[in-house]
Amino acid sequence: MSQTTVQSGLSGPQYEAWLGYHVALPEAKGATRTRTAAPLWSRHIDVKEQHLVIDTALTELKQGLGKLYGEQPVIRHSQTQSTDSDEQRKPSIRVGTWAGNNQVTSAFTEAERAAVQGEGFIIREHESLQEMVIGSETPQGVLYAVFHLLRELTLKQGKSEEAGPALDGVKPLFITEQPVNQLRMINQWDNVDGSIERGYAGRSIFYENGEFTQDLGRIRDYARLLASTGINAISINNVNVHKQESLFLTERYLGDVAKVAAEFRAYGIRLFLCANYASPIEVGGLQTADPLDDQVREWWNVQTAKVYAAIPDFGGYVIKADSENRPGPFTYNRDHADGANMLAEALRPFGGLVIWRCFVYDCKQDWRDRTTDRARAAYDHFKPLDGRFADNVILQIKNGPMDFQVREAVSPLFGAMENTNQVIEFQITQEYTGQQRHLAYLVPQWKEILDFDTYAKGKGSEIKRIADGSLFQRQYSGFAAVSNIGADASWTGHPLAQANLYGYGRLGWNPELSAEAIADEWVRLTFGHDEQVVERVTGMLLSSLDIYENYTAPLGVGWMVNPDHHYGPNVDGYEYSKWGTYHFADCHGIGVDRTVKSGTGYTSQYHAENAARYESLETCPDELILFFHHVPYTHVLHSGKTVIQHIYDTHFEGAAQAEALLETWRELEGKVDPVIFNKVATLQEEQADHAKEWRDMINTYFYRKSGIQDEQARKIY
Amino acid sequence: MSQTTVQSGLSGPQYEAWLGYHVALPEAKGATRTRTAAPLWSRHIDVKEQHLVIDTALTELKQGLGKLYGEQPVIRHSQTQSTDSDEQRKPSIRVGTWAGNNQVTSAFTEAERAAVQGEGFIIREHESLQEMVIGSETPQGVLYAVFHLLRELTLKQGKSEEAGPALDGVKPLFITEQPVNQLRMINQWDNVDGSIERGYAGRSIFYENGEFTQDLGRIRDYARLLASTGINAISINNVNVHKQESLFLTERYLGDVAKVAAEFRAYGIRLFLCANYASPIEVGGLQTADPLDDQVREWWNVQTAKVYAAIPDFGGYVIKADSENRPGPFTYNRDHADGANMLAEALRPFGGLVIWRCFVYDCKQDWRDRTTDRARAAYDHFKPLDGRFADNVILQIKNGPMDFQVREAVSPLFGAMENTNQVIEFQITQEYTGQQRHLAYLVPQWKEILDFDTYAKGKGSEIKRIADGSLFQRQYSGFAAVSNIGADASWTGHPLAQANLYGYGRLGWNPELSAEAIADEWVRLTFGHDEQVVERVTGMLLSSLDIYENYTAPLGVGWMVNPDHHYGPNVDGYEYSKWGTYHFADCHGIGVDRTVKSGTGYTSQYHAENAARYESLETCPDELILFFHHVPYTHVLHSGKTVIQHIYDTHFEGAAQAEALLETWRELEGKVDPVIFNKVATLQEEQADHAKEWRDMINTYFYRKSGIQDEQARKIY
Repeated sequence: MSQTTVQSGLSGPQYEAWLGYHVALPEAKGATRTRTAAPLWSRHIDVKEQHLVIDTALTELKQGLGKLYGEQPVIRHSQTQSTDSDEQRKPSIRVGTWAGNNQVTSAFTEAERAAVQGEGFIIREHESLQEMVIGSETPQGVLYAVFHLLRELTLKQGKSEEAGPALDGVKPLFITEQPVNQLRMINQWDNVDGSIERGYAGRSIFYENGEFTQDLGRIRDYARLLASTGINAISINNVNVHKQESLFLTERYLGDVAKVAAEFRAYGIRLFLCANYASPIEVGGLQTADPLDDQVREWWNVQTAKVYAAIPDFGGYVIKADSENRPGPFTYNRDHADGANMLAEALRPFGGLVIWRCFVYDCKQDWRDRTTDRARAAYDHFKPLDGRFADNVILQIKNGPMDFQVREAVSPLFGAMENTNQVIEFQITQEYTGQQRHLAYLVPQWKEILDFDTYAKGKGSEIKRIADGSLFQRQYSGFAAVSNIGADASWTGHPLAQANLYGYGRLGWNPELSAEAIADEWVRLTFGHDEQVVERVTGMLLSSLDIYENYTAPLGVGWMVNPDHHYGPNVDGYEYSKWGTYHFADCHGIGVDRTVKSGTGYTSQYHAENAARYESLETCPDELILFFHHVPYTHVLHSGKTVIQHIYDTHFEGAAQAEALLETWRELEGKVDPVIFNKVATLQEEQADHAKEWRDMINTYFYRKSGIQDEQARKIY
Repeated sequence: MSQTTVQSGLSGPQYEAWLGYHVALPEAKGATRTRTAAPLWSRHIDVKEQHLVIDTALTELKQGLGKLYGEQPVIRHSQTQSTDSDEQRKPSIRVGTWAGNNQVTSAFTEAERAAVQGEGFIIREHESLQEMVIGSETPQGVLYAVFHLLRELTLKQGKSEEAGPALDGVKPLFITEQPVNQLRMINQWDNVDGSIERGYAGRSIFYENGEFTQDLGRIRDYARLLASTGINAISINNVNVHKQESLFLTERYLGDVAKVAAEFRAYGIRLFLCANYASPIEVGGLQTADPLDDQVREWWNVQTAKVYAAIPDFGGYVIKADSENRPGPFTYNRDHADGANMLAEALRPFGGLVIWRCFVYDCKQDWRDRTTDRARAAYDHFKPLDGRFADNVILQIKNGPMDFQVREAVSPLFGAMENTNQVIEFQITQEYTGQQRHLAYLVPQWKEILDFDTYAKGKGSEIKRIADGSLFQRQYSGFAAVSNIGADASWTGHPLAQANLYGYGRLGWNPELSAEAIADEWVRLTFGHDEQVVERVTGMLLSSLDIYENYTAPLGVGWMVNPDHHYGPNVDGYEYSKWGTYHFADCHGIGVDRTVKSGTGYTSQYHAENAARYESLETCPDELILFFHHVPYTHVLHSGKTVIQHIYDTHFEGAAQAEALLETWRELEGKVDPVIFNKVATLQEEQADHAKEWRDMINTYFYRKSGIQDEQARKIY
């Protein structure tokens, strides 16, 4: 085992992220930290199996314990069914799978073992504190257990510091974890030229200048970060598959793809590729990509077999078809079930999956046409196809019906497809939420979406129960999300944006975790246990999304950004465009009428309880009022404020809050790593300035348009 | 003389432009044209001089007459002061300068010769019709005379067809021409990567991929087009001088520049380069570009001497300094006189000129600041410097104070700089006037500007008299304009946009020519004399700018285009930007208050008569009302309409007119070259469609903002 934790040559706290296991305060302050006494079991690791992923787990465990306690344990290998006396080998950590290590197996009751399957695991510390046992059905489960244990020990260390060393070790650990979601996926929107669509953290770590990177170490480091949060799948190229990336399925690139797959494999992550639906034409030289054409089907069969020859555990294809000018089955008067099932057939012999995106809408809409409603599109396209997709097809549905706005309704497609595999798609990269130049901790948004009750099977039909497959008892299900990382030394551009990547993984593992708990974990793992740091940074994270919403597009109407790059305010930026993204503000009022009564009828796509709630002005929640209704500026919200006064108030408040974030951060100078401190300080300055620009532009726009004065007579231009 | 008229390999009517001399109707229609009988003198050309430019003139004359009459004349060379009997050599054309050809000289009286200097010329056809004489003080004058004669003969041929052949040749030609403007310059905004800033006719004909083109033939063909209209100077690189183009002054590129200069030299055109003000740093490796620093001055002296060693007739430097993020003397707390005079000193020993642009303004303005007025900037910067510029410095002043809008006031800097050399800058390339996808014949705009009376020295102080140097009796003066050509086969993208390049040259030669006369000339030279074609195309051209103005930004307020590329409607596109380009529309009214009484005080930059006219709502012309005043939508214009109704009416009308342009053009199928027909038809379709987009976006914007209904209840969205 020659691997080391950091492979890329990069280092330092911002690069190690939440896996630093070094909870000391900055040396500059001269603070000293008494390292928690090493537990007795931490000197030896006993293992009986040889397996790539278990090897990874052992390396992580050895290095992590070494960092935590100052000395690396010794790894002792023995025969799988060895009869060595257990007692002789204590104290130690025993690591293994049920099938591969009888000593691990026998440490748990049958009932305990039965409570976890697959990637689930159990960790038990013996009451004598002489023994720790880590067991799972699978090597992946063992790896997750190791990361979990190291996290718990790091967090516990903080707690023991608070309580004083006397309490350390009193209560032995007993942890049982089972991932709630089966597929926990990351989508890279990286292009082979080295750019990243909607990437805000530097260039791609995967590609440069049309070739795969030579720096596989950086990819391994990324795999490690992902696996530590529970990610088990990744697609490594942009869903918009350009000419060159279409060749990833061919000899031109398959060897490179296989090398990358090997790095992820070591961390239990399965590799997927985004495929170009028109590949039979563009790569294969056929005249058509018609999914019912025999030659086309054969082309996919042959090409897919070649992929599996190079990568036996290849995950499958992610497909964006008939969307934003991408090719798809519509060209041949076929529907998306025809298209997806053709690929499913090619993948089935190898256990591969088709992940088919539902982001399909008319991107050449006429802004003059107020009957077409982009929000309706996914449901209108896919609902009629429920039940027609092959069993290894999974639909990937964006969380909302528009496009990752800071606030929009949840997609009504959740709860409408009882007979179809589905994953929910989130966007970790902050395309519409400040592009990693503004702070926006997204976990609260995701939580709110996951907890949304669709009423698909009556009360209690939350989206998280659709995503995890339980509500409709689907074979495949889970989470997917667009990554926010790049070649930046902090991975995410804004160092605090690491919390989103971490939080996504944790939430995919267990959607019941609270946003607060995840923030607390991430801050302690990243910055240590200084209570002022924990309190302030957690506070910044948890307030950040509300702050961002305050000074940007109001009341769920969305957009109001500059076209194309989507950064910065532009109220009419998308108002007269072809993209179907309008606010319809005039001198009287604003909002999109999506009611059945007088609008586009979109509300009818929800189950009755939600449909009624959104349809009525009386029951529609304030924060979505302009998403569902066109109202006068003088309409009084449930808050008691008029719409126009709400706009003014939230924008003044949001800009002030952004300034306060900066002040809060500045108080932490000397208490966090200086590189991170300076990087975040610069970004928070930009946010504070830019929030004022948002405030003034939005307020001026609506003051000029409505002619209504701010009740508090604040400065509007 | 190996040169031929078309050097590039390209051919056909759209490429030959107004120099085709083939006035036949398309053969497809089966129409026949009786070629006008060749005049007696057209069989021989007699010449005594050897000179590069005279050689060019002879080639043009030979080929032109050959095309016009079906047979090329024979060129006969003889000794300069030959005593051959004139009579023996008749019939013929005699061509030469006063100093170089005694037979030409003696054909005119001393008074006749004294009436023309320099590039002026005289053409006389002997009453016997046996002899034509072309004379000038200079070879350039001879070349202009040849182009003029060929144009007159082509136009006359058309007229003789109308009148019938009987009248042909009755009245002998006698033409005396003297260019009104001394400098008649073209600015290329081409970059060495092959792109063209604000270019709408393909890639550069000068450069590709960081190198000068190998296709010097195309450059020579361009020189020919330019010389035929009277152009005598050209700058060949973008005023925004990037890193690579900064090296044009160095060994890296000087050899290439010299080759291009040679092509233009043959057509009497002097070559200029745009220089990077920071060259002493970026090229020379100095620490400063301070114009008062001895090392910096010496660097420019040395570098300029190298340029002249390569190009002895080099024209000089064109400079954009302290403008739109370009470097300049402000960095060193020096003013623009300091900066320009330093370069003037380097150029003076060689007779070179500094052409210093006045497009200097704050391009990082805060939109919230309503006191800063970009329109004021050029005057505020340069007026205090009047009299401080060296005698070989020329200020280049854009026609308006903003930036080539379809309608804006004229620059008040004209008439404010009595002691400074000036040229007026126009923009032939249609950056803000439809980008050669909409038809916009710009000559009427230029005429209106040139005829504008500044009252600088009382009534009759028109801008044309400032541009030509006569009003203030300046040593250097003239016209400059940004070219509209590129590698497109028609040169200008939209074939009818050739009329702007032609018209600019003709107007520079003689600003008294009418827009109508220039249009008529261009149409006949390009398409021949079919009266339907002449009438329709001339009508299209002459109505086009009003049509474009009708459906775009109203009443002189300008902008309302998409940022950056400037194509297509976007009412708020520049409203909240840093560029100083605002309309300030709210629910009550619109416009920029530039009055002294309540606004930015810009009106005071004009001489009293104009200042008073613009200051008062009563006397301010309708078409500029929103440029000078902020008025309610209900303000009644001199036309009797309210502002809002004017907006609605002009936009409905403009879109209908754009549609009518298309219909008019379609009637010409079969009567013009089919390649040109189809190209124009496609573009006019785009214009007709796009004009509707403009109509609806502008009308909807103002209807939503004002809440005021269209009196005619037409469809507004």
